[in-house]
Amino acid sequence: MAAHDYQAIGSEVTLFEHAFSRRLPVMLTGPTGCGKTRLVEHMGARLGRPVVTISCHDDLTSADLVGRFVVLGGDVVWTDGPLTRAVKDGAICYLDEVVEARHDSLAVLHSLTDHRRTLYLDRSGEVVEAPDTFMLVCSYNPAYRSSLKDLKPSFRQRFVTLPMSYLPPDREAEVVVAESGVAAEVASRLVRCATTIRTAESVFHFEPPSTRTLVTAAQLIAAGTDEMAAAEASILAPLSTDGAVSDGLREVAAACLLPAGAPA
Amino acid sequence: MAAHDYQAIGSEVTLFEHAFSRRLPVMLTGPTGCGKTRLVEHMGARLGRPVVTISCHDDLTSADLVGRFVVLGGDVVWTDGPLTRAVKDGAICYLDEVVEARHDSLAVLHSLTDHRRTLYLDRSGEVVEAPDTFMLVCSYNPAYRSSLKDLKPSFRQRFVTLPMSYLPPDREAEVVVAESGVAAEVASRLVRCATTIRTAESVFHFEPPSTRTLVTAAQLIAAGTDEMAAAEASILAPLSTDGAVSDGLREVAAACLLPAGAPA
Amino acid sequence: MAAHDYQAIGSEVTLFEHAFSRRLPVMLTGPTGCGKTRLVEHMGARLGRPVVTISCHDDLTSADLVGRFVVLGGDVVWTDGPLTRAVKDGAICYLDEVVEARHDSLAVLHSLTDHRRTLYLDRSGEVVEAPDTFMLVCSYNPAYRSSLKDLKPSFRQRFVTLPMSYLPPDREAEVVVAESGVAAEVASRLVRCATTIRTAESVFHFEPPSTRTLVTAAQLIAAGTDEMAAAEASILAPLSTDGAVSDGLREVAAACLLPAGAPA
Amino acid sequence: MAAHDYQAIGSEVTLFEHAFSRRLPVMLTGPTGCGKTRLVEHMGARLGRPVVTISCHDDLTSADLVGRFVVLGGDVVWTDGPLTRAVKDGAICYLDEVVEARHDSLAVLHSLTDHRRTLYLDRSGEVVEAPDTFMLVCSYNPAYRSSLKDLKPSFRQRFVTLPMSYLPPDREAEVVVAESGVAAEVASRLVRCATTIRTAESVFHFEPPSTRTLVTAAQLIAAGTDEMAAAEASILAPLSTDGAVSDGLREVAAACLLPAGAPA
Amino acid sequence: MAAHDYQAIGSEVTLFEHAFSRRLPVMLTGPTGCGKTRLVEHMGARLGRPVVTISCHDDLTSADLVGRFVVLGGDVVWTDGPLTRAVKDGAICYLDEVVEARHDSLAVLHSLTDHRRTLYLDRSGEVVEAPDTFMLVCSYNPAYRSSLKDLKPSFRQRFVTLPMSYLPPDREAEVVVAESGVAAEVASRLVRCATTIRTAESVFHFEPPSTRTLVTAAQLIAAGTDEMAAAEASILAPLSTDGAVSDGLREVAAACLLPAGAPA
Amino acid sequence: MAAHDYQAIGSEVTLFEHAFSRRLPVMLTGPTGCGKTRLVEHMGARLGRPVVTISCHDDLTSADLVGRFVVLGGDVVWTDGPLTRAVKDGAICYLDEVVEARHDSLAVLHSLTDHRRTLYLDRSGEVVEAPDTFMLVCSYNPAYRSSLKDLKPSFRQRFVTLPMSYLPPDREAEVVVAESGVAAEVASRLVRCATTIRTAESVFHFEPPSTRTLVTAAQLIAAGTDEMAAAEASILAPLSTDGAVSDGLREVAAACLLPAGAPA
Repeated sequence: MAAHDYQAIGSEVTLFEHAFSRRLPVMLTGPTGCGKTRLVEHMGARLGRPVVTISCHDDLTSADLVGRFVVLGGDVVWTDGPLTRAVKDGAICYLDEVVEARHDSLAVLHSLTDHRRTLYLDRSGEVVEAPDTFMLVCSYNPAYRSSLKDLKPSFRQRFVTLPMSYLPPDREAEVVVAESGVAAEVASRLVRCATTIRTAESVFHFEPPSTRTLVTAAQLIAAGTDEMAAAEASILAPLSTDGAVSDGLREVAAACLLPAGAPA
Repeated sequence: MAAHDYQAIGSEVTLFEHAFSRRLPVMLTGPTGCGKTRLVEHMGARLGRPVVTISCHDDLTSADLVGRFVVLGGDVVWTDGPLTRAVKDGAICYLDEVVEARHDSLAVLHSLTDHRRTLYLDRSGEVVEAPDTFMLVCSYNPAYRSSLKDLKPSFRQRFVTLPMSYLPPDREAEVVVAESGVAAEVASRLVRCATTIRTAESVFHFEPPSTRTLVTAAQLIAAGTDEMAAAEASILAPLSTDGAVSDGLREVAAACLLPAGAPA
Repeated sequence: MAAHDYQAIGSEVTLFEHAFSRRLPVMLTGPTGCGKTRLVEHMGARLGRPVVTISCHDDLTSADLVGRFVVLGGDVVWTDGPLTRAVKDGAICYLDEVVEARHDSLAVLHSLTDHRRTLYLDRSGEVVEAPDTFMLVCSYNPAYRSSLKDLKPSFRQRFVTLPMSYLPPDREAEVVVAESGVAAEVASRLVRCATTIRTAESVFHFEPPSTRTLVTAAQLIAAGTDEMAAAEASILAPLSTDGAVSDGLREVAAACLLPAGAPA
Repeated sequence: MAAHDYQAIGSEVTLFEHAFSRRLPVMLTGPTGCGKTRLVEHMGARLGRPVVTISCHDDLTSADLVGRFVVLGGDVVWTDGPLTRAVKDGAICYLDEVVEARHDSLAVLHSLTDHRRTLYLDRSGEVVEAPDTFMLVCSYNPAYRSSLKDLKPSFRQRFVTLPMSYLPPDREAEVVVAESGVAAEVASRLVRCATTIRTAESVFHFEPPSTRTLVTAAQLIAAGTDEMAAAEASILAPLSTDGAVSDGLREVAAACLLPAGAPA
Repeated sequence: MAAHDYQAIGSEVTLFEHAFSRRLPVMLTGPTGCGKTRLVEHMGARLGRPVVTISCHDDLTSADLVGRFVVLGGDVVWTDGPLTRAVKDGAICYLDEVVEARHDSLAVLHSLTDHRRTLYLDRSGEVVEAPDTFMLVCSYNPAYRSSLKDLKPSFRQRFVTLPMSYLPPDREAEVVVAESGVAAEVASRLVRCATTIRTAESVFHFEPPSTRTLVTAAQLIAAGTDEMAAAEASILAPLSTDGAVSDGLREVAAACLLPAGAPA
Repeated sequence: MAAHDYQAIGSEVTLFEHAFSRRLPVMLTGPTGCGKTRLVEHMGARLGRPVVTISCHDDLTSADLVGRFVVLGGDVVWTDGPLTRAVKDGAICYLDEVVEARHDSLAVLHSLTDHRRTLYLDRSGEVVEAPDTFMLVCSYNPAYRSSLKDLKPSFRQRFVTLPMSYLPPDREAEVVVAESGVAAEVASRLVRCATTIRTAESVFHFEPPSTRTLVTAAQLIAAGTDEMAAAEASILAPLSTDGAVSDGLREVAAACLLPAGAPA
């Protein structure tokens, strides 16, 4: 789906705009696939700013963010990293799952998230002041928190926090239809299936199914897969590999969806 | 055996084709040697796309996937990694045992597995949009899951999941005959032996014997080894080094196979 | 806010000046956002010395502090790190959250914090004597202490320790007004909200809200966000992701702040 | 001793030949010093193929196996590693104690151990198909298995497994005579001593003495050391440093061997 | 204070001279700030030898001690490290807190601490015999010993061990006066405060205050800080961040020192 | 003391010669300072072979042993490591405390310790056959064994093991006299002190004092230190930092040695 298709859930668009207008960094929290990346792309389009996305992982160093010296034609040339490019371009820089990054990557963000709004490139000696249109956005999923690796409170207090959640069922069904081309009833059945599973989440202790998995299932259905098989492959199978849990999930799905061979 | 010899078990070929037609990434799950690699090679032939296979391991970095700068003749040249070559060629890229890879390798896949279908080469600055024929396929064996290293739910929800299992006995025996040239009765005895052991798997807690081990045993038999010795070397010995368990396995095999010196 | 806006809480400004006059290093301790960085910037302005700030993290090596050899145009050139530059310039060098740095980074500080006041650059062979105006300032937050990573007593005894805390309520409200432009009553309500939560800190076991979060909330309010929503996004959300705790915090906030839609 | 002196214990020579004729990889298992390396050297001579031996250890990377780019005279040249050279030469490549190697080293073997029989050099871009005479042989000692580091079942199922054990006593005594030149009675006494200790292995929980230690003891005897002193230095001392166990072992040896000063 | 101001506590100066005359290495042990570094500087002045001080830390490698090859102007040049320079100059080389160094750093000291008195530079191939005036001195604080990182007994047996402790009160007061210029009564009060706290050390389990902290407090007093505030910032605050313990320490200090505003 | 002063304890010199004559590697075991290094130096002089000593530590890599490519004047040149030089020179190569080395360092020794007697330099491609006079000698102290890091039984079985212990008292006293020049009675008293402590070793659980510490004490006495002070600094202090144990040790020493000021 294109970024302009973003469906606002609450006041997150307004709050995001207020933060942008006051040059405040934003932290998006919420479950997988509830639309955090979509919101950032939507706001980029709405505010007329390019979005630079960086998927964080535990080998991401500060040099991967800000840049490094590389040997080029026998000479040594500084090459900006994606964060530096975003600062210079006044872009929205989106650090996805920021909790995964190494601590030196987080430290380099400090001076961009307070009144200084400046990036210090210690190695090249350059000091880059962020233009007013630069905005830093991070996301993290509190459900993944562990005692070993969590964001420090002092880091989280540097951001305006926007908690995100799933779309309400009818709005989510509209997205599924728009993204896959299935009939509205098919989309409603898939959303009902997901909603039931999400409600059972605290019992089964798994990450609930995202809107993305519903769209994937709908795409398979549009390609000719029957509803139950599409739901199994896209919604149920990623949730659990425990046989008993899978059987329970399959019952939930069977109660919501058309069986194989049923006239759609 | 050649890739066109693939024997479909359920609807995995159809689902794979539906995913391909909708440009969705696929995750194959199932026990060792149940045919995951064969399915990918088969689908590559069927869809007319080359297959690039990458065996993942815990030292595999994102640079191993996407490429790196290398010094060549005093100058620095970017060299595409196998993932980048697969994207550019519109190939099927198969990441075998993806759970083994390092997290930076998984992060680099994110933008290829959602609506962006784009590979960002941060270090070279290149942005590669995947052609429609590019497809990402991963495999992992849920039986190896540990609390230390597992795929994150958010990652698994990015894929259409196809659970794989062993072939039914008669079909598996046909494969053994085709691959080794032994007589049908020999193949049937080997399959019966494997099936009995697989049923006992939950008791003995070992990884059940794959079709590959049956083919290996049959090849030794075709070379002149007697059935029991071939089964010991190829099917039983890799399963356990515990004396009591080995004795139990040998009894199972002896009940299914011809003894040494028996007229075949 | 500009550095000259610093609001002294106790005798920290005088003690800092005495330490400066006797060329003694200073260690600032206290909770997140109580003004440690502001004090350093204020003192730099007051003493007429530039401030070099270094955010410490667990990948910070001594080479990141003192400098390294880099290849430039085929030749190898020594490049001073920020600590060396600060020593040579007679600046105030501020190591923020020094407990995070690696041990080799701390060892390099030893000769700067005793009667030698000298930086030994073992790799370049240079010996840099600190001018009288050079001052080393470190900060750390004792609330983060763990058995795994703490400052050694011998290291802490090298510093004059200045414990910092939050501003008294009326002074903190003045800062909020000055930084955001909200009305005094709004600022007072935000401070009351923060003070109540800080008092409850030992019960809830979270890092209490900093002055920075109050300023952020006030900036959102100035941009048009209602008080409760601004407090949720800036003050409450970073504190906890536990539902019950969040509900408790929201009640506290609701008792202090105007509800959405209330005439400000 | 020369490789042609290998003494077959069971059918391992025949099974090895069958595996070679069907281009199947072989895994040798068994206790230290039971003749695994000797078997490989013997089979190399018998099959007319050179043997490339690689002692695995936990710093062995895939680059150590397949090769790497090295700077030579200012230019960058690819240099084949020992595995690549073995594949190109159609040699027998013997990975001793393969369980010690790092996982990236094992992953690189996958495509050589299935129907592909191909080595993919990702970094140089070369694809090397193994000639029919190439054979991969690995060894590992199941007694060293730990939960931390063991071969994965899927890896072990790629091989024909040949379990090895000690020679029968009379055959082992012949080897000792041939290797050291001692009289047959001396060799018999040393073998009797080793056999008694090996029987007690499960009681004492130590790695039993290998044939190599008997040959070493016999060589010392041939040089003039008395039997008990030679056995202590070569057979007993490496087994245990626990005083009580050592005393027990010494009694066993004293009951089998001539005392110091006895007429041989 | 200048190095010639060292105040001998026991026979450490004589023992140090005896060790120097017999070319024996010395290990200084004792609590933080009891004068180990001062003793080394004093002995350097007394014996007419330069002192090379190296602060050890857990990233200190043997190359940091002995030197390394560096690229200079396109060519590779060996650069001596501080240990090598000290050996060549016949200096006193002082390794402060040697227990912190990595094991390769300790291994390189072996041949300097026995009858060989020689430094082997494996990488450059150079062999440096120590002149008679070269002396190796190490220090470590047994109070920091942990099971994870301790000096091996075989390493400690290579040294003449000189246990150090605090100066007697009247001598310590003289040092405080000489270093800060405060009146004798002020120094006596500070020493009395420290002595009381040191006696309570085994109860409170903290590192006792060093002479250095008393000098720091006295310097603040000389700059105009009142006694209690100076003691809090320099003596008490580094000892503990536990509120109850801090209150106890403050009572001790209040019983020894003049209150704020008292006529000095 | 010079290497020719070695005092044989048992038959270790003869066994060493037998091993040398049969080209067998030797493993020396025993407590710290019992004379392992001295034996190797003695045997080097006796057999007319140079000795190359390598102190092992846990950062010692195989490249540190066999050599590496280094850039020299723009070109890349292979530089032999100390092990390679020892093999080429037919020297005795002594790996002190071999258990400390990394596993890749041990793997490189395999082909030198069996019938191959060959060093394979995988990176340079060179194969170095050891001349008959090359001998590999390793040492390790079984008292340091831990479950985390121990020599593998298969490695220990590659060596002729020579267990070493302290000299008998009268012989040890002769060494002390020869090394320090003290009177025979002084040496006897020091040896009696050490012997008493060694007997108590199993009670106190510390590494017993080596002959080296007695020589050190004697050297201090020769320089003018009194016996008790010399024993404290050289023999007692390295043993323990536990106050109660130290008091016990001091009583033992006082019962054996002359008090301070006593007429020697």
